[in-house]
Amino acid sequence: MTRTLRLAMVGGGEGAFIGAIHRAAAALDGDWRLVAGAFSSDAERNRRSGEGLGIAPDRTYASLEALLAAEAALPDGERVDAVSIVTPNHLHAPMAIAALDAGFHVFCEKPMALNMEEAKAIAQAAERSGRHFALAFTYSGYPLVEEARARVAGGDFGKIRLVQVEYSQGWLSQPIDRDGNKQAEWRTDPARAGLGGCLGDIGTHAFHLAEHVSGLRVQELCADLATHVPGRRLDDDVSVLLRLDHGARGVLNATQVAAGDENGLKLRIHGERGGLEWSQMEPNSLVLRWLDRPTEIVRAGGPGLGESTLRRLRTPAGHPEGYIEAFANLYRAFAQRIAGEDMAGTFPSVGDGLRTMAFVESVIADAASDRKWTPLTGA
Amino acid sequence: MTRTLRLAMVGGGEGAFIGAIHRAAAALDGDWRLVAGAFSSDAERNRRSGEGLGIAPDRTYASLEALLAAEAALPDGERVDAVSIVTPNHLHAPMAIAALDAGFHVFCEKPMALNMEEAKAIAQAAERSGRHFALAFTYSGYPLVEEARARVAGGDFGKIRLVQVEYSQGWLSQPIDRDGNKQAEWRTDPARAGLGGCLGDIGTHAFHLAEHVSGLRVQELCADLATHVPGRRLDDDVSVLLRLDHGARGVLNATQVAAGDENGLKLRIHGERGGLEWSQMEPNSLVLRWLDRPTEIVRAGGPGLGESTLRRLRTPAGHPEGYIEAFANLYRAFAQRIAGEDMAGTFPSVGDGLRTMAFVESVIADAASDRKWTPLTGA
Amino acid sequence: MTRTLRLAMVGGGEGAFIGAIHRAAAALDGDWRLVAGAFSSDAERNRRSGEGLGIAPDRTYASLEALLAAEAALPDGERVDAVSIVTPNHLHAPMAIAALDAGFHVFCEKPMALNMEEAKAIAQAAERSGRHFALAFTYSGYPLVEEARARVAGGDFGKIRLVQVEYSQGWLSQPIDRDGNKQAEWRTDPARAGLGGCLGDIGTHAFHLAEHVSGLRVQELCADLATHVPGRRLDDDVSVLLRLDHGARGVLNATQVAAGDENGLKLRIHGERGGLEWSQMEPNSLVLRWLDRPTEIVRAGGPGLGESTLRRLRTPAGHPEGYIEAFANLYRAFAQRIAGEDMAGTFPSVGDGLRTMAFVESVIADAASDRKWTPLTGA
Amino acid sequence: MTRTLRLAMVGGGEGAFIGAIHRAAAALDGDWRLVAGAFSSDAERNRRSGEGLGIAPDRTYASLEALLAAEAALPDGERVDAVSIVTPNHLHAPMAIAALDAGFHVFCEKPMALNMEEAKAIAQAAERSGRHFALAFTYSGYPLVEEARARVAGGDFGKIRLVQVEYSQGWLSQPIDRDGNKQAEWRTDPARAGLGGCLGDIGTHAFHLAEHVSGLRVQELCADLATHVPGRRLDDDVSVLLRLDHGARGVLNATQVAAGDENGLKLRIHGERGGLEWSQMEPNSLVLRWLDRPTEIVRAGGPGLGESTLRRLRTPAGHPEGYIEAFANLYRAFAQRIAGEDMAGTFPSVGDGLRTMAFVESVIADAASDRKWTPLTGA
Repeated sequence: MTRTLRLAMVGGGEGAFIGAIHRAAAALDGDWRLVAGAFSSDAERNRRSGEGLGIAPDRTYASLEALLAAEAALPDGERVDAVSIVTPNHLHAPMAIAALDAGFHVFCEKPMALNMEEAKAIAQAAERSGRHFALAFTYSGYPLVEEARARVAGGDFGKIRLVQVEYSQGWLSQPIDRDGNKQAEWRTDPARAGLGGCLGDIGTHAFHLAEHVSGLRVQELCADLATHVPGRRLDDDVSVLLRLDHGARGVLNATQVAAGDENGLKLRIHGERGGLEWSQMEPNSLVLRWLDRPTEIVRAGGPGLGESTLRRLRTPAGHPEGYIEAFANLYRAFAQRIAGEDMAGTFPSVGDGLRTMAFVESVIADAASDRKWTPLTGA
Repeated sequence: MTRTLRLAMVGGGEGAFIGAIHRAAAALDGDWRLVAGAFSSDAERNRRSGEGLGIAPDRTYASLEALLAAEAALPDGERVDAVSIVTPNHLHAPMAIAALDAGFHVFCEKPMALNMEEAKAIAQAAERSGRHFALAFTYSGYPLVEEARARVAGGDFGKIRLVQVEYSQGWLSQPIDRDGNKQAEWRTDPARAGLGGCLGDIGTHAFHLAEHVSGLRVQELCADLATHVPGRRLDDDVSVLLRLDHGARGVLNATQVAAGDENGLKLRIHGERGGLEWSQMEPNSLVLRWLDRPTEIVRAGGPGLGESTLRRLRTPAGHPEGYIEAFANLYRAFAQRIAGEDMAGTFPSVGDGLRTMAFVESVIADAASDRKWTPLTGA
Repeated sequence: MTRTLRLAMVGGGEGAFIGAIHRAAAALDGDWRLVAGAFSSDAERNRRSGEGLGIAPDRTYASLEALLAAEAALPDGERVDAVSIVTPNHLHAPMAIAALDAGFHVFCEKPMALNMEEAKAIAQAAERSGRHFALAFTYSGYPLVEEARARVAGGDFGKIRLVQVEYSQGWLSQPIDRDGNKQAEWRTDPARAGLGGCLGDIGTHAFHLAEHVSGLRVQELCADLATHVPGRRLDDDVSVLLRLDHGARGVLNATQVAAGDENGLKLRIHGERGGLEWSQMEPNSLVLRWLDRPTEIVRAGGPGLGESTLRRLRTPAGHPEGYIEAFANLYRAFAQRIAGEDMAGTFPSVGDGLRTMAFVESVIADAASDRKWTPLTGA
Repeated sequence: MTRTLRLAMVGGGEGAFIGAIHRAAAALDGDWRLVAGAFSSDAERNRRSGEGLGIAPDRTYASLEALLAAEAALPDGERVDAVSIVTPNHLHAPMAIAALDAGFHVFCEKPMALNMEEAKAIAQAAERSGRHFALAFTYSGYPLVEEARARVAGGDFGKIRLVQVEYSQGWLSQPIDRDGNKQAEWRTDPARAGLGGCLGDIGTHAFHLAEHVSGLRVQELCADLATHVPGRRLDDDVSVLLRLDHGARGVLNATQVAAGDENGLKLRIHGERGGLEWSQMEPNSLVLRWLDRPTEIVRAGGPGLGESTLRRLRTPAGHPEGYIEAFANLYRAFAQRIAGEDMAGTFPSVGDGLRTMAFVESVIADAASDRKWTPLTGA
């Protein structure tokens, strides 16, 4: 990058988890500098957050509206290039649309929106504004996810038959959403989280990863949603049978009540000649299994990687890169797209957001019905 | 054991895989001695097989009928105690019934029979004969499967919410069933294998393990069957959503076209306070995850095992036991039951067989219908 | 095998660990039948042991002498073919020599003897008797150890530079040798165990494995012996720097006070182009690392194995084989050698025993001196 | 941090590996901002590097001398707080001393210097200047290394008996130092790398980690150095027997010719009651083994961590942190020390540097002699 881009953030005040991750990811490669923000609707918390982050007081704004108005008025070379939206889900759509319409690029936390209608409105705003919209399907930023995708696309495994994806967490095993855990509280509140609980929060990650890597689209699905913790208002566990393009079959499993599990996002894909396995908790290895030769472990930084994978790596083999680095790959690609420079990779965008919203709506519809198979259309 | 029991075998001639495993399992602890057999319908192959196994020529019989007649006529102290049936599936029921009715205990390969009707006929024969019937759901013989079962039953994890089981093989990824592979050929022939292909061959193992360890029964299921290899006459891939007792949910996944996979039988169970994971390919470890303390690895021979687990172990911690040892635990328990001695454990029997037959029939019925949920009743 | 051989056992009465393993290993493939024994010097324990093993009372002998005399007098076709010696170390040499001289083949627990002088006497007895002598360096019986050996010998890794071997146990972390644990008691008694404690018990396994697989001989060594548990009379921890043929270097590490460790025998060998890693606790995988291509996991039963490995396997890929199966490979090879039939493999013998005795003596000499390097000659 | 500190860098121009890592580590948490540098002695490369990093042209200096002079003349609030030195080893000492004497804090790549004499001169400069000196023993920045250290210090394992540390790389398996690889070239040049090759480059990391976590000091050592690649001028493989405080024993093994290995830094420590294992390539797990209860896997972000570990973590359990995050923990602690704020942790400093220099010199002396044990004194 020949210049450092300027970033503003909405949400992500003191104590918020995902805002800090966005900031670290944006800072890592020196492509972005955080210079403005509206971190909290609580004025004092907002002030303290801006100060702690080294943001000038006059660029620590009381609201997104104030931020957009003031920044738009700044001259080129001072004005922020993009806005990161890291608020609860129900604010994603109105804020993204406002920022895009004000002429800023947007990097938005997932899910894109509360429902398909909102998501489509964002898509329209992106189109009419000509601004870029990035969506934090972070796991697609891992280098070995790119390697997996490229190998499937390159036909290494032949025709794909099986797609198995799971995302297993345990942190909602107890009713912490009623015990003052803010992260849990809004995620299980339909008004702020959207229609899906576990489904929207991590089921969408699993779905996105499965389609992204397999290059196949789910054609129809059959789902079961469960709420295991009494009193919880949204699902905390979802299982889905998948039928994908060209006869491929799959299973998607996401749960937040697998007590003791951490962030067990795992993808397996099998074709006629072999298959792959990737696990988010050991992201620097990609296991390749073959019909007629020994299993291979392809390693970040090691031999056998494609060019698009290498561009996403920072350290030599054996020095692990993690979640923040994966996230930084999305911020880097976003910066390069904005700057019109050579690509270090792609980033999830409007199409990915619409597709996952369609998935959420289809799962909910199917789970509520006696019908076995529900088509996954749209997007 | 105060005496070595005498065993006869039907099937399992030269080149047959599972017969050799039964023999090794029976021999391992010195509880059984193979003294008779009808190893093949091909006379010359039968003769050679008997000779290779050190069986006296006059106890190498041309058929099961001949075996039963001749052995029944031998005096106590010479006559075989039990017959192992290791033929293709379609012969299990008639042979088991004949052997039981002739007064012999039976150790039968799985599946119990081609269908529920046959399975019930075996159950009746076992009851009227008063003989013991063991069924080779081998994986339940692993020591750490017993540990897992005992811990769930003991309430270590609280109320069980999730049961995830998978059995992933790749050996039928190519159409070897049409290329002369005998193991593959009969397993994909409905007349000899029964209604299910992958479903019957390994889906039943997965189902049995899930119910055995969780102590829960599947109440209803929703299934998808696929045949990925063109021209194959039975399913080679099955996925099933499960609803179990007390609101527990589950997923069962069995496939024989996961190219490169070996015998990936894996079980995960989660309750309110923690969960377990056991994998057949590393059978000497049991992973326990907890809400509020570090993950534990319970090891065969190591600290923390229950009495019923210890009785199934032969070597100290760190000297791995494998598949044959698990199998031998079933043969040992079968011998002890016959001898009326102290138990080293239990073995799968009539009830397990009926239950898995009901599973196969429900999956097939559900997969063929538009109905989402099919009850799993019977047995 | 066209006939089952007859085996006698000395030692291994009720409660002894290694005797039971020998019996299971010998029984597993049907090559051997245990028909005689002198299981204990305690008459009643001897009687009970014989009865429990189904041995005829008149072949349950009071001593090895009685056994040898009586068996030698039996006709061909009844007389035992071989004697397994599973007594404490100090009895190995006199018993092996007596059995060989009486015309029996011998399968002896390791170490071969208390010292090099005794070991040479066994070697002479084997030579003059023309009988076969097998030594229980069990780990060399694992199929993937053979695969490792064959690949090194075949030059897959180029010239070998590094040999790292370790055997880490923790069961002697506490002074259980003074608290009535019989296994621990004799192993730490110089009169019964020999000059080395940990060194003789497991250091020899590590040394044997390293030379066996690498095909290199240790030329000189520099050692440190420690006794961590107060009051223990022999070493419980040994570390050795190795200089091997052709400039290769190595480290050998064996300990019995790594609290919490089980049987962590692990071998790594590296050459110019790649290297291998094998671990006894997951014996069915062999990890191959390469300069210029991804790491491979070669699996028991999977693709890529050599013929000599395949002959040591019983189950298809993914059905684990363990310690008893490795042991059984030695008993099978021993049987086939005696029968003069086709080889399923080799077994450790006189040469391996002499070599490990030389190792023990060199380590002890070096550890006791201020000299840095001590040659490992002899054998 | 209430303000962002200003950093200058010496070395680390285009294409240099470790400079980029330092920059990412410093940027990650927003504690530092890179505002000045002397990136290369090649003027054009220096200019391009500064531009690419967004450094103002007038703060992209031709040399460290120029940098120190100009920055020292800037007012408080503009002047850099610290200088990062990421040049080849032979420049560490003169540059560190110059920077300290000019009043700047210094973050220096390891090794501290070419020899003990230089190292002591740095120590004196640090003392007389009153500035902070941080040394990049990066691995001590991993959160679970801190957990390991704290548990040993807290007595969880009882008296420590065994310390085993290894660092296995393969990247110097071929003579790439003669084939134009710049990283390899200077590392194998005594004039630029110092007395040790592999010993200085990664043996020092292993040594530092072992003493840092065990809390024990090596009292004497016995070493073997090897150069496996013909023509190489420094060692590429080192093995050392260790005798530590209170009778503990250890082995240190470092190699750069383990073809196919990546950055296999692994530490195992055992005490009377249990032990630990940590591996840099899976840094988010700490394995704890116990005499009398199951093995535990303590995980980054999971239950059971101490306060000092938690302060080094950024993401919840299951979202892996890697090498850059470990490095960033050192930069963060360095910043907080400078700012006089609450500590997120410590960082390696003068004492660690002196100690590792003493280790290098003792190993070289011992390896060159016939003497078995060489004391490790000094520092």
